Amino acid sequence: MVKVSVMGASGYTGVELVRLLHAHPEVEIACVTARQNAGEEMASLFPSLFREIDLVCEGGDPARPAKESDIVFTALPHQAAMEVVPGLLEYGSRVVDLSADYRLRDVDVYRRWYQEHTSADLLPEAVYGLPELNRDQVRSARLVANPGCYPTSVALALSPLLREKLIDHRTLVADCKSGTSGAGRAAKVGSLFCEVNEGFKPYGVGAHRHTPEIEQTLSAVAGEDVRLTFTPHLLPINRGILSTCYALALGDVDTTSLRSLYQQTYASERFVRLLPQGSWPNVSNVRGSNFCDINLMFDARTNRVIVVAAIDNLVKGAAGQAVQNMNLMLGFEESLGLTQLALFP
Amino acid sequence: MVKVSVMGASGYTGVELVRLLHAHPEVEIACVTARQNAGEEMASLFPSLFREIDLVCEGGDPARPAKESDIVFTALPHQAAMEVVPGLLEYGSRVVDLSADYRLRDVDVYRRWYQEHTSADLLPEAVYGLPELNRDQVRSARLVANPGCYPTSVALALSPLLREKLIDHRTLVADCKSGTSGAGRAAKVGSLFCEVNEGFKPYGVGAHRHTPEIEQTLSAVAGEDVRLTFTPHLLPINRGILSTCYALALGDVDTTSLRSLYQQTYASERFVRLLPQGSWPNVSNVRGSNFCDINLMFDARTNRVIVVAAIDNLVKGAAGQAVQNMNLMLGFEESLGLTQLALFP
Amino acid sequence: MVKVSVMGASGYTGVELVRLLHAHPEVEIACVTARQNAGEEMASLFPSLFREIDLVCEGGDPARPAKESDIVFTALPHQAAMEVVPGLLEYGSRVVDLSADYRLRDVDVYRRWYQEHTSADLLPEAVYGLPELNRDQVRSARLVANPGCYPTSVALALSPLLREKLIDHRTLVADCKSGTSGAGRAAKVGSLFCEVNEGFKPYGVGAHRHTPEIEQTLSAVAGEDVRLTFTPHLLPINRGILSTCYALALGDVDTTSLRSLYQQTYASERFVRLLPQGSWPNVSNVRGSNFCDINLMFDARTNRVIVVAAIDNLVKGAAGQAVQNMNLMLGFEESLGLTQLALFP
Amino acid sequence: MVKVSVMGASGYTGVELVRLLHAHPEVEIACVTARQNAGEEMASLFPSLFREIDLVCEGGDPARPAKESDIVFTALPHQAAMEVVPGLLEYGSRVVDLSADYRLRDVDVYRRWYQEHTSADLLPEAVYGLPELNRDQVRSARLVANPGCYPTSVALALSPLLREKLIDHRTLVADCKSGTSGAGRAAKVGSLFCEVNEGFKPYGVGAHRHTPEIEQTLSAVAGEDVRLTFTPHLLPINRGILSTCYALALGDVDTTSLRSLYQQTYASERFVRLLPQGSWPNVSNVRGSNFCDINLMFDARTNRVIVVAAIDNLVKGAAGQAVQNMNLMLGFEESLGLTQLALFP
Repeated sequence: MVKVSVMGASGYTGVELVRLLHAHPEVEIACVTARQNAGEEMASLFPSLFREIDLVCEGGDPARPAKESDIVFTALPHQAAMEVVPGLLEYGSRVVDLSADYRLRDVDVYRRWYQEHTSADLLPEAVYGLPELNRDQVRSARLVANPGCYPTSVALALSPLLREKLIDHRTLVADCKSGTSGAGRAAKVGSLFCEVNEGFKPYGVGAHRHTPEIEQTLSAVAGEDVRLTFTPHLLPINRGILSTCYALALGDVDTTSLRSLYQQTYASERFVRLLPQGSWPNVSNVRGSNFCDINLMFDARTNRVIVVAAIDNLVKGAAGQAVQNMNLMLGFEESLGLTQLALFP
Repeated sequence: MVKVSVMGASGYTGVELVRLLHAHPEVEIACVTARQNAGEEMASLFPSLFREIDLVCEGGDPARPAKESDIVFTALPHQAAMEVVPGLLEYGSRVVDLSADYRLRDVDVYRRWYQEHTSADLLPEAVYGLPELNRDQVRSARLVANPGCYPTSVALALSPLLREKLIDHRTLVADCKSGTSGAGRAAKVGSLFCEVNEGFKPYGVGAHRHTPEIEQTLSAVAGEDVRLTFTPHLLPINRGILSTCYALALGDVDTTSLRSLYQQTYASERFVRLLPQGSWPNVSNVRGSNFCDINLMFDARTNRVIVVAAIDNLVKGAAGQAVQNMNLMLGFEESLGLTQLALFP
Repeated sequence: MVKVSVMGASGYTGVELVRLLHAHPEVEIACVTARQNAGEEMASLFPSLFREIDLVCEGGDPARPAKESDIVFTALPHQAAMEVVPGLLEYGSRVVDLSADYRLRDVDVYRRWYQEHTSADLLPEAVYGLPELNRDQVRSARLVANPGCYPTSVALALSPLLREKLIDHRTLVADCKSGTSGAGRAAKVGSLFCEVNEGFKPYGVGAHRHTPEIEQTLSAVAGEDVRLTFTPHLLPINRGILSTCYALALGDVDTTSLRSLYQQTYASERFVRLLPQGSWPNVSNVRGSNFCDINLMFDARTNRVIVVAAIDNLVKGAAGQAVQNMNLMLGFEESLGLTQLALFP
Repeated sequence: MVKVSVMGASGYTGVELVRLLHAHPEVEIACVTARQNAGEEMASLFPSLFREIDLVCEGGDPARPAKESDIVFTALPHQAAMEVVPGLLEYGSRVVDLSADYRLRDVDVYRRWYQEHTSADLLPEAVYGLPELNRDQVRSARLVANPGCYPTSVALALSPLLREKLIDHRTLVADCKSGTSGAGRAAKVGSLFCEVNEGFKPYGVGAHRHTPEIEQTLSAVAGEDVRLTFTPHLLPINRGILSTCYALALGDVDTTSLRSLYQQTYASERFVRLLPQGSWPNVSNVRGSNFCDINLMFDARTNRVIVVAAIDNLVKGAAGQAVQNMNLMLGFEESLGLTQLALFP
């Protein structure tokens, strides 16, 4: 059994890591940390774990998790992550960081959308952990920057089109909708049940921090600078992201040829499912699973390609993808511990 | 008191008409019909009406509602509506038809998206009942075609931009999300609680019947043929539509100038609220009310205008707008009976 | 127009008072207070009010509301209420207090379940504002203690049985379920969307502070000391309380005779609806309205009476009942401004 | 690998069996049937299964499943089950029947609450498959009657008290609340999203068919005839049952002694968790898992014991318990394939 740890275990991503790692046949959770809940049992923070998870939260010091485990997952807010990641690496751990701190290659871009970067020297070696794009680099990485939830869905939805230059990227729009667990477990009025339930709204319009991350990935795939409009919305559900992406087509395409491109691209991907024609993704169908469901069509009336992707934001959009990366780093079967079917209904 | 009737009172739009007409100080409901529930009390179909609404459903014959009322609301499915509307008019009633049957000017377009039209001779006189665009024609209309829910939100969101030719309409996308009452009260597996709850999906992608209706309205406003991509999604909430609309800007715009255009356009509109800068529409804030909340921004990074509009699909998207039209037809204050605040939370 | 004020307008009960008072034809809101949001516009706290409510929150000083209005509603937490109510009365206002501070007759009971009482001298004159039980005293009251949400539903459900001594009160159980708006608008982890949604749990088992309030009311009706087990549960909905009450029957009863008792008891009550036999209350059917829907049966197999009552916790359980009390205090028709139908769906 | 089949795979219980059996390391699904969907792929009925479950639904004939598998799960409606179970047994299969057809020992009781029994000769050998009560009989059973969802929760909640004669069973009340998946996947108006969402109501008051099943189990445990009032309610959530049970105490009890009784009773039960004092069950914490969470207290004020139990109605209340029974029947570790943590949030 490989030993792993989770720093920042008191959030929704943290508890999801615990859920998935607990189900993983080849790893054991050595240590969990939660600065504000040091000394408390995980099962008292999350009664769903009662009697099954016997871990007490440590404080935020990276020494303990680093010493006790081969891989540490940092499920911390940005900024807090880069305060501990260098230490973890120095202690000899490999790290899967679920924050935004090591995702952006360009430190200036990071500064513009977040704040000063205090660990920029690690950026060159950090691998952006989207296995479907960077599988080989992940295997040998010491530091994996686990992608954001929105960027994961948009990158899987649009990469084939951009790689083949089948869309005009100046017309790219990603209209994305996320479940409320994406807002975290902090006590904020805007996240209260009565504020979210029976509601629906956009937020961070034109200004969400996942924008540069999406653009970085799409630009790399396209081989040229890609800019898009990305609009996140808050869904009154616990889990799930659905991204509806639009762009005008370049050249001669039709739905059949586009489907065939996606079929080929994702033929050997265990976690990306191109749905049958006419069957559109629904976040219900990926709930609790690591799948990314995709479908697309060419709307001849408007010469536009429409691509829709659905993931569980806490699984393929966070903890599941982190475990997928861990599997690659450790030489396990990539899907190990991640093959449970979605929970429907 | 003016007497009015509702044909098709057993659906969600029907009961919403009853709710709003009951609250209206100047009208009285003379008769309600519901073919499949003839002989049943409205209050037994909808226990929320118990002891307050003392009406028994009549069958589908238009004679009775026509004779007993000055205005008849037809809340019937398309096709069923055009089977009774001619009769209602012959009997001397004025009609607010909430179906799609009289919305499209071009009978060929209707045939392509729906079926044969059996009442095409009435199309020339039917007035498209979006008061913010066609107020004067509504006043004197004998037959008002009450707009669809999606088209209402998109038309109010985009008209000012198209009228002023500030956007490139070839780049127009309307990504729309509707609460489940929009799917009606028919017993279908896809509308079951467990299928919808905690889910989210697009439907009718590239093929929804509201597309030509939206395009007709926008084309009229733009003075040229407008085509757009319109993608509806199903939200796990009872009520509400939120439409997020995108287009590349033409010429020199900024958020301030755009806001000022909308401010002017809607300055005297009681039911269209341009929200303060940075405050985005949420369907929660219009629940049960006749408001359409709008905001917009210019995203300089991508040269794109983003407009968001929210309505209650059963009120401003259906029954409320129908009452607004009735007020105009009867010479009442346009907002009479429609000034209740939204139910929040 | 009578002038009224709302102290504590930033909570869910506060904004509900604003919604109902705005719809009331004979009153005008003079002033709203919200200590922590002094200086902010109500419409910025609650965008549903945008452009319709033009009030800025005052601080917590009772002088201004008292001077500007005939009746002040105090929608404050317990303890905070008794800090301002004496002042309001001194300034000459009449008060409808929605907190628990003046509901319990016995200051020792208050101390045991809450804390020290700092305004006990007002307890003798405070009238418990459940109009269906104390209508006449409310009319002339200077200080009305508006009942709690759970106690309202349980009192209306059980009073007829206890008054007629048809049940053995030692076997009384009230199993109650409330929507999440009952937990208020404070930012707490337990009230977050993801914690409540798709969940259901009891809380305060055997220890909820509404217990003595319920017992006081039932004891007064029964003419002897009544104790019951009251268990509240948290429902993943915004609004609504449903109380299911159980007791063994005394003597010879059957469903028909019980229904006839309730029919008589509530015959002239505008807001209490005894549903037809076999039709059980659903919180959906009272959403946004001031109704209390009731039904009951005698279960001959177990010799037990089962009574179910449903209200909207923010309306009949708080703000609506407060307005009903205000109507009585001001000599208006008791239902004035409260006759809107429920919002269904 | 042991081969198993599922008859009635198109309902929510059916797809849940598929989910759990797919995750089970020692079994393989040989065949699924769904009379009305014969010839359709499971993955087209349930897109969550796409690419993971490659099974086509057979018709309702028991021959095929019987021949191809050692154990057949019948997830059919009552009456439909007893039409195929005798055949399955004759073909040599062992059966776990998830319907009500073989749960009641007394054929007269069955007739009174359901209809004529056409397979009464099998009743004597059918084992009521609640492992915590009947583990040994299940091991060797040829036919297991898998308990109902409500009865499972109530039996686990109350058995220890009744066995020790600590409560007066004439005062027993079980107030139960179930998620909507319990209503099945049939297209009914009452199960539509808009009818259930934001609603809450009791149903089958005094008349629900699970009543005699609960009474049979409790009577067996108590060693005397037990009757109770059982009131089910419909929760606007997908999954979960929470049962709140009440009875007056007999003799001298307190919370500590009661907790210690439950601690002992369930000490070696993998799936029954007595929560820490003061921590009450929440259906959220068992979602997707086979746990039954329990807590209880003695309310000295009213001399009443309150026991609360929560399960996932589709897992411990149906498919999970069926797999647990299968494990016993096949000599596997009882928890094999059932140890996944709950999906929270």
